[in-house]
Amino acid sequence: MLLGRVIGTVWATQKDEKLEGLRLLIVRAVDLELKPLSNFVIAVDTVSAGVGELVLVAQGSSARQTQETHNKPVDAVIMAIVENLNYDTIENLMREYQGREQDVSERINRVAET
Amino acid sequence: MLLGRVIGTVWATQKDEKLEGLRLLIVRAVDLELKPLSNFVIAVDTVSAGVGELVLVAQGSSARQTQETHNKPVDAVIMAIVENLNYDTIENLMREYQGREQDVSERINRVAET
Amino acid sequence: MLLGRVIGTVWATQKDEKLEGLRLLIVRAVDLELKPLSNFVIAVDTVSAGVGELVLVAQGSSARQTQETHNKPVDAVIMAIVENLNYDTIENLMREYQGREQDVSERINRVAET
Amino acid sequence: MLLGRVIGTVWATQKDEKLEGLRLLIVRAVDLELKPLSNFVIAVDTVSAGVGELVLVAQGSSARQTQETHNKPVDAVIMAIVENLNYDTIENLMREYQGREQDVSERINRVAET
Amino acid sequence: MLLGRVIGTVWATQKDEKLEGLRLLIVRAVDLELKPLSNFVIAVDTVSAGVGELVLVAQGSSARQTQETHNKPVDAVIMAIVENLNYDTIENLMREYQGREQDVSERINRVAET
Repeated sequence: MLLGRVIGTVWATQKDEKLEGLRLLIVRAVDLELKPLSNFVIAVDTVSAGVGELVLVAQGSSARQTQETHNKPVDAVIMAIVENLNYDTIENLMREYQGREQDVSERINRVAET
Repeated sequence: MLLGRVIGTVWATQKDEKLEGLRLLIVRAVDLELKPLSNFVIAVDTVSAGVGELVLVAQGSSARQTQETHNKPVDAVIMAIVENLNYDTIENLMREYQGREQDVSERINRVAET
Repeated sequence: MLLGRVIGTVWATQKDEKLEGLRLLIVRAVDLELKPLSNFVIAVDTVSAGVGELVLVAQGSSARQTQETHNKPVDAVIMAIVENLNYDTIENLMREYQGREQDVSERINRVAET
Repeated sequence: MLLGRVIGTVWATQKDEKLEGLRLLIVRAVDLELKPLSNFVIAVDTVSAGVGELVLVAQGSSARQTQETHNKPVDAVIMAIVENLNYDTIENLMREYQGREQDVSERINRVAET
Repeated sequence: MLLGRVIGTVWATQKDEKLEGLRLLIVRAVDLELKPLSNFVIAVDTVSAGVGELVLVAQGSSARQTQETHNKPVDAVIMAIVENLNYDTIENLMREYQGREQDVSERINRVAET
């Protein structure tokens, strides 16, 4: 899923009848530091997300797997409001694991140098 | 969904028979300032969108969830004409929320600095 | 759909049996000036497109909505040969509409400057 | 479909039970000069492709339209081994067609200069 | 499928009811040298992947082909933990094959120089 922040709303009266009553929100993608990225998507809200909230967006046919969007011409849906985000960088994780006896899963048998 | 502007029309006589009678429009993607982006898509119109109008495009299998495009080899459909667009920047939103008691949803527990 | 030009053919004898008899063409994406872009796709032809012809390609599950590709491991299909392409730039369209009384659909209420 | 070259293999014992017995190969995308591109994909092999072979990869739901991958969490499948690739550049094709009486399909009525 | 490393976890209480009980992990894409790439995805874990582990992610509708994600608004699923990765560069593979009598599959008949 895409991590993003709700930054606005879109109104459209002339639309496919199946879209009646759906809330169309503007979600700006963010990186793990929560800084805005260049891409954004217009998504249907199904979890009462507010402007400013950090959300997850499911895209493609998965966007139609909610009650509100079933069989509708919708390819992006807000399906969760993020409460907490906890991560580490790959560099730190590798240092932490390097010391351990069982190498994380990196028995890389590279046949040849790139 | 993709935010874009209708900028033209495509005609094709030699085509899959299922496409008969469908209007094929050229939609240039735009940013939130409504400035044109580099990508464009050819989409089937289902809401009588005119050249110059700001529209939403649903892509992938979701493009087949309208009466006109059901079970047809179409992967992009214009399903709404945008009447109004209202948004704020993430920076402003964060400043606005920072003052509030309950932090929007950013209890970021980063295990380690990037 | 993707706008592109047929520039060649691919032959494969060792393939999924469902692909038997299908024509695999190389389609280079083009911009609206019909200049070649960097990306290309291998697509199944269903409209007897010839090398050099300007075509539309439907991708993803929509590529399986033709008689020849139904239920086959195919994610790109040529479904139309473009006969005519007619467009204007967004800048010109906006100038043309600016004069008109009813602004095209751009009552943009931006809450704040980016 | 994606044109690529098989460059390696992935082993995974802890996996969804439906993946049992499937061969996971690393396919590096190539351009039409067969030079490696930056992107690569892990795909299920269904045509006994060997390392070094030039192949076609179908992605998305189309990857599940083979006997081995039906209803499985697989979004990329090798469905053909390329035997022969024959193409021309758009520039050459246009020069060749320019001489011809019937312009290929480019009656481009551009309403205005970009 | 996408090759990536699990680097963290996302918590969301306000979400589509179908997501109850699903583990949402942050997967950073990596290259074949296992170096982090810029893109990351939030995926549902179905194989008890731990933070730091190298995994495969299936996206799109294929993400819904597991017991845990069936018919749910989920477009990315971790479906395998990578134990071993074995590859060669295209340059080495070509040198190795060049010596062989049967050219791998590169009887490239380019009609004209690019």
